[in-house]
Amino acid sequence: IKSKLPYVTNHIFSEMSALAARHNAINLSQGFPNFEPSPTLQDLVAASLADKSLPLANQYAPMAGLPSLRQSVAKKMNQSYGIAVDWESEITITVGATAAIYNTIAAFVWPGDEVILMEPCYDSYRPAVDMAGGIPVIYEMQAPDFKIDWKVLATLFTPKTRMICICTPNNPTGTVFEPADMAMLSELVRDTDVIVMSDEVYEHMVYNGRVHETPLKYDGLRDRTVSVFSFGKTYHITGWRIGYCIAAPALTSEIRKIHQNSVFSASHPLQQALTRYMDESDDYLSLPVFYQQKRDLFAAAMQPSRFRLLPCHGSYFQLMDYAAISQESDYDFCVRLAREYGVAAIPVSRLHSNFKDNRLIRLCFAKTDETLVAAAGLLCRV
Amino acid sequence: IKSKLPYVTNHIFSEMSALAARHNAINLSQGFPNFEPSPTLQDLVAASLADKSLPLANQYAPMAGLPSLRQSVAKKMNQSYGIAVDWESEITITVGATAAIYNTIAAFVWPGDEVILMEPCYDSYRPAVDMAGGIPVIYEMQAPDFKIDWKVLATLFTPKTRMICICTPNNPTGTVFEPADMAMLSELVRDTDVIVMSDEVYEHMVYNGRVHETPLKYDGLRDRTVSVFSFGKTYHITGWRIGYCIAAPALTSEIRKIHQNSVFSASHPLQQALTRYMDESDDYLSLPVFYQQKRDLFAAAMQPSRFRLLPCHGSYFQLMDYAAISQESDYDFCVRLAREYGVAAIPVSRLHSNFKDNRLIRLCFAKTDETLVAAAGLLCRV
Ligand SMILES: CSCCC(=O)C(=O)O
Ligand SMILES: CSCCC(=O)C(=O)O
Repeated sequence: IKSKLPYVTNHIFSEMSALAARHNAINLSQGFPNFEPSPTLQDLVAASLADKSLPLANQYAPMAGLPSLRQSVAKKMNQSYGIAVDWESEITITVGATAAIYNTIAAFVWPGDEVILMEPCYDSYRPAVDMAGGIPVIYEMQAPDFKIDWKVLATLFTPKTRMICICTPNNPTGTVFEPADMAMLSELVRDTDVIVMSDEVYEHMVYNGRVHETPLKYDGLRDRTVSVFSFGKTYHITGWRIGYCIAAPALTSEIRKIHQNSVFSASHPLQQALTRYMDESDDYLSLPVFYQQKRDLFAAAMQPSRFRLLPCHGSYFQLMDYAAISQESDYDFCVRLAREYGVAAIPVSRLHSNFKDNRLIRLCFAKTDETLVAAAGLLCRV
Repeated sequence: IKSKLPYVTNHIFSEMSALAARHNAINLSQGFPNFEPSPTLQDLVAASLADKSLPLANQYAPMAGLPSLRQSVAKKMNQSYGIAVDWESEITITVGATAAIYNTIAAFVWPGDEVILMEPCYDSYRPAVDMAGGIPVIYEMQAPDFKIDWKVLATLFTPKTRMICICTPNNPTGTVFEPADMAMLSELVRDTDVIVMSDEVYEHMVYNGRVHETPLKYDGLRDRTVSVFSFGKTYHITGWRIGYCIAAPALTSEIRKIHQNSVFSASHPLQQALTRYMDESDDYLSLPVFYQQKRDLFAAAMQPSRFRLLPCHGSYFQLMDYAAISQESDYDFCVRLAREYGVAAIPVSRLHSNFKDNRLIRLCFAKTDETLVAAAGLLCRV
């Protein structure tokens, strides 16, 4: 059988999680928290199911998502970024951010269209482009600061460029866009019909007083951007598979056509619980402080180690350079790290389509303080 | 913006449900039950979340689905159809049957490939084919018996035929495949590399002692079929968005590549609840009797009406011919039915890509007995 995605032979996150399980290693590979979400939120799942005044909470939710949940999202966008978003025509509740990304690329990329990806990046972008018949055009962000050189990036634009995919706060590099980046992006796409797919799932993980910039806030970008968000990352429920995307009505209606025919809708009882939770809690406001403390705790505990920690301004990932320790490939190094030292990490080469190896590994610090201290202890023995 | 799916301007099921809500009509349009799923199953959602011995039940489930749930599915396939299925390499838990269908078509249909669809059919098949760049080749099933004339169907096969999509028990016609149909299908695809997408979501809704036939049971079909099933239809939880597909390992691994990159996985806590429920209950065994009683109750209550009921051997849909009542289009008739008579139905023309109008409407009898009696009472006034 001829494969549409011959290079998708495994899933690096699942592979490293499985390796962690096999060797009983601390799993800092796949990006999810190892602590519980709010008990209130969990109780609301049961409460929603028990509340028989909610008609048919186990049957299909409306295709675009529960109106009440979309209204809460609109309110949150206003509170967080001062942006007016129309819940009815601009917000779609999706099956995780992954589905929002896939749908966006599927809706707008035609065979032969070029899509600019900035690598290293999340591993689902490129398969989505390939499935649409698009041509990935890779901009390599350069270690150690991974800053985007917009002049270089500009040279990748051609008349066939249809989309640019950005991710801020960035997985895996921990960089965050500044207003100047948005200005450059806006400049670059002006007078084109390029669409911006903006992965903002780590919107609340920004540190040292930095502010998350969403393209939706910028005039030249508002109408051509699809911004993708995640309830999973924000509420510690990555397994619920609920995310959302926000885009101008003309874009939203095309995205919904794919959503409708590929999954139809997101889980109704889980959307119901989230709706009620958002009504009573603003606890996402504490996320920057919560995760900054974890970042700092982990970095402090790594101090005695031979790893070099790269700056992390956002996201819940810490990059580490191990070049002073070993000249193994990052993949081999990660395998040995799990096996011999008891810590699982992600080899960053697997987030480059050319497997470019900068001797970097990615560790997720969305873990309990005890886990982070224990992992750092093991890593300091390397 | 150029649309990939220009004809997807609305969703007939959502439209008719909304019409029902607006006119306070009894909603027999969209296919979902208006009664509760098992309280035990609902309680298991809360119990799974409360059970802290389950590690990380709110975080990502394994990409292909919980092993325990896949094992239960394998056992059920053996019990129901006497088929051996390998849970690890042949079963994938998907975001509803809709996603399984989409992924299957996305994985195997290449631009220019022909895909045979038998209309009327569920409205997501064709968009999935179009998204893959495939060419839908339509076989029209003929009212009133909708039997497949395999000799005619054979003439639609060309060297470009890549897939045939079947649905048994059939939505919307209520027909079911017999062993002879499977034999003909098997004959037709022999010595080709045609893949069979087999939508079997109504597997347990077969009446008067009929038996559901799955292509997986047939030698010439086992290795080239992707069979699609639905927890939503079987356990009255269409809003949970959990389904599965079963296919030989070589097919499964390609389907999972799309699943991984389009949604990653299905809801973890809801999979957990289903796993436990399947361990303790075989209540799906009562579905044929349960729904046959509803079919018969509805038909009996419709006796005095001017509608002509078509035979329903399977599924939870009843087709009705209203030609003796009106010469309006089925769409206009459905709108008037909801507005003036208080019952919402689906105009079957909307399940034909050419909107072919046979003056047929589809009514869902997955409703409480009171609802069915009340709806029939209203319909008898037409
Ligand atoms: C769906 S598994 C990957 C989770 C994640 O966001 C990451 O580790 O980058
Ligand atoms: C996803 S809405 C359609 C539900 C259904 O199966 C039908 O009505 O045919």
